Amino acid sequence: DPLKGRVNKPRNKGLTMVLDKGVGPGELRDILKIAGDYIDILKFTFGTSLLYPDKVLCDKIKIALEYNIDVYPGGTLFEVALDQSKINDFLFRAKQLGFTAVEISNGTIDISPKLRRETIYKANSLGFKVFTEVGKKDKADALTVEEMQDQIKDDISAGAYRIIIEGRESGRGVSIYHEDGSIDMGMVDDILVTVGSNRDVLLWEAPLKKQQLSLIRKLGSNVNLGNIAVDEILALETLRRGLRGDTFKFS
Amino acid sequence: DPLKGRVNKPRNKGLTMVLDKGVGPGELRDILKIAGDYIDILKFTFGTSLLYPDKVLCDKIKIALEYNIDVYPGGTLFEVALDQSKINDFLFRAKQLGFTAVEISNGTIDISPKLRRETIYKANSLGFKVFTEVGKKDKADALTVEEMQDQIKDDISAGAYRIIIEGRESGRGVSIYHEDGSIDMGMVDDILVTVGSNRDVLLWEAPLKKQQLSLIRKLGSNVNLGNIAVDEILALETLRRGLRGDTFKFS
Amino acid sequence: DPLKGRVNKPRNKGLTMVLDKGVGPGELRDILKIAGDYIDILKFTFGTSLLYPDKVLCDKIKIALEYNIDVYPGGTLFEVALDQSKINDFLFRAKQLGFTAVEISNGTIDISPKLRRETIYKANSLGFKVFTEVGKKDKADALTVEEMQDQIKDDISAGAYRIIIEGRESGRGVSIYHEDGSIDMGMVDDILVTVGSNRDVLLWEAPLKKQQLSLIRKLGSNVNLGNIAVDEILALETLRRGLRGDTFKFS
Repeated sequence: DPLKGRVNKPRNKGLTMVLDKGVGPGELRDILKIAGDYIDILKFTFGTSLLYPDKVLCDKIKIALEYNIDVYPGGTLFEVALDQSKINDFLFRAKQLGFTAVEISNGTIDISPKLRRETIYKANSLGFKVFTEVGKKDKADALTVEEMQDQIKDDISAGAYRIIIEGRESGRGVSIYHEDGSIDMGMVDDILVTVGSNRDVLLWEAPLKKQQLSLIRKLGSNVNLGNIAVDEILALETLRRGLRGDTFKFS
Repeated sequence: DPLKGRVNKPRNKGLTMVLDKGVGPGELRDILKIAGDYIDILKFTFGTSLLYPDKVLCDKIKIALEYNIDVYPGGTLFEVALDQSKINDFLFRAKQLGFTAVEISNGTIDISPKLRRETIYKANSLGFKVFTEVGKKDKADALTVEEMQDQIKDDISAGAYRIIIEGRESGRGVSIYHEDGSIDMGMVDDILVTVGSNRDVLLWEAPLKKQQLSLIRKLGSNVNLGNIAVDEILALETLRRGLRGDTFKFS
Repeated sequence: DPLKGRVNKPRNKGLTMVLDKGVGPGELRDILKIAGDYIDILKFTFGTSLLYPDKVLCDKIKIALEYNIDVYPGGTLFEVALDQSKINDFLFRAKQLGFTAVEISNGTIDISPKLRRETIYKANSLGFKVFTEVGKKDKADALTVEEMQDQIKDDISAGAYRIIIEGRESGRGVSIYHEDGSIDMGMVDDILVTVGSNRDVLLWEAPLKKQQLSLIRKLGSNVNLGNIAVDEILALETLRRGLRGDTFKFS
C-alpha cells in the first residue's frame, strides 16, 4: 500500500463500522465476499431490526458472524426500551437473537449517569461489547464540550468498549459537524484531550467522504470510523491505504 | 411502536410507493424478504421497463405480486404512448405483461380533460388501479393552484384510485417543493382543502427524508408517500412508527 | 424510442462506462440481467480491485466479459505502479487477471510525455484497449486549456482508444465542472475543437444527472459518458432514448 501501516483484522484500531439500513440477506452475503475483511462492526441502524422477520434477522446476524463482524441494533431501539423501562428485556432479547454488541445512547431522550453506568455493567456482564454514544441528535439539545468530556470519562471508567461520537446518517449539523458537513476541529481537539493517549477508544461517525478524509489525515489510517454506507466500504479502505487520489497524494 | 396507529398491509392508507430505477430480479427478491411488508406499490420509473428483456420484466412483476404489491410502469411511458396516439396499445400491453396499475400523467406533455377522463374509465374497465399524477416536471410549465385543484377534483370524479402529487426523483423545484427541497406548506393546504376529509386519496411523492418527516408530522403516520428509494424503505417505516430519533422524540 | 438514433451494442459511440466501487459478484450478475445491453465498460474504480480476493475479482471480470463489457482497474492503480516504477508488472498482472483495458492517467502524480506515449504503445501491444485520462484530481493542479489540448492530441497520436475527461466520482470542482456541478461549456468547446470531427474519441465522466442531460443535449444521444453509478444505468439510458421527461420533451 502507498500509505503504510494499515492494520488488518482482527484489530483493535482502524475499526470500520458499517451502517445497515436494511439490506437483504443475499446482498449482505454478496457484499461480504468482497468487503468482509474491511468491516469490523455492522449496525442495524435506527429501529430497523425490529421490522424484519425473525428468521431473516437471525440469518443476517449469522452471516456477519462468519466474517468475525460484531453486530448490534441501533441506539434508538435501546432508547425505546429505556423509555418503556424495559432495558433488561431489551438486553436478553438482543442476546437471544445473536447480537454481539449493544449501543447505549441518549441521542434523543435522557438517561441518568447512574443508570447509564449500571447498564454498561449489565451489558458487559452478559458478554456484549458495549458501545456508548456521545452527542444529541437534535441540535437544540447539543451538549456543551464539558458535558461531552464528562460523559466520555464516565463511559470509559464504566467499561465501555468504544465511545461513538454522534454523526447521524447525514453528517450535518450534529456534534462535531457543521451544517455543511465540515468538521469543527476545535471540538475534535477538545474530545481528544479527554482521552489522552487512549485515542483508539473513540469511534467517529463520519458518513461523508470529506469527513473520512479529514479524520484520516488528522488521526491516521487506523482511526475508528463509523456510519459508513454499504456501498462505500471499499472506497473508505482505499482512502485508508492510499489507493485513492486523495490520500495517495499525501503518502 | 412508540408512535401508535400505524396500519398494516393490506391497507388503504399509509401506502408506501417505491421507485425502482432498475434493480435486478435477485435484488428485488432479496429486498422483499426484509421489506415486503412495508411496500404497497412498486413503480418501474421513467421508461425503464421498456429497456428490460421481457422475461426479466415478467419475473420482477411476479415477484412483486407474491408480496401483494401493485406494480406499474412510470408515467413517461404513458405519455410516450399518448404522444403517439397509442393509448390502447399501451394499456393492453401493460395488462399482458402483468402490471396491476397504470399512471395517467401529463408531467411533460398535455392531455385534454376529456381524453384524461376517458382514459381513466378505460383503464378502470380493464381492471387496473388508476393512479393519476398532478404537477408538471418542468418548473416553467407549473400549474396554478386552481389548475391543480380542478384536476384533482376531475380525477377523483372520473374514478382515480389515488392522486399522486408530483415530486420527481429529486424532490427539488417541482410542485410543492422549493429548490432546496423544503415544502411549500401553503400549497399543501390548498391541495388538502380540495379533498376535504378524503385525504387518503392523495399520495405525495417525497423522496427526501426531511420531506417524509414533515409530511408525517403534518398528516400522520399513515400518510401515503411515494418515490421512496429502494434503500430507504425500512428507514421510512421507522419514521412512521417512531423507531427513529426524529419521530421517536415526538411520540 | 421518442429520441431517435441511439445505437446498440456492440458500438463505437454512445459508450456508457460504469463506475464499480465494489459491488459483489452476485449483484453484478443481477444488474447485468437487466442492464447488460446498456453498459460498454466497467471500471473497478480507485484501487478497489486490489482489495478483493483474487477469485472474486476473476469471477467479476468473467461475468462482465459474458456481456461483452470491457473491464479495467481504476487509474489510481496505474499511478501507484508508475510511482513505484512497476508499470510492466502492472500491465502483466492486469493481463493475467483478465482485464481487457487499462487507464493511463496522471490525475495525481506526473508522468513525462515520453513515458506516457511508451506506455500507451506497450499496453496496445499487449492487446489492451487503452483509455487515457486528461485532467487533475486536485483543483490546485488544474491543467490549462492548452495543456489539455496538447495532451489530447498526443494521446490520440500515440494510439489511445478513448480519451477520458476527468470528472471524479463527485463531478464537482474538477476539469470541466464548476463547484456546483454545472459545466464550463467554454472549456467543453475548447476540448471539442482539439478533436475536430473525431468527437467519438472523447469520453466524458459525468456522474450527475444534470451533467448527463447537458452533454446529451449538446452532443447527442450517442455521446460517450462515464462514471455512471451502478443504480443509474437504466436512468441514463432513458435519457439517451427520450424515455424520461427531461429528453422526451425535446424529442
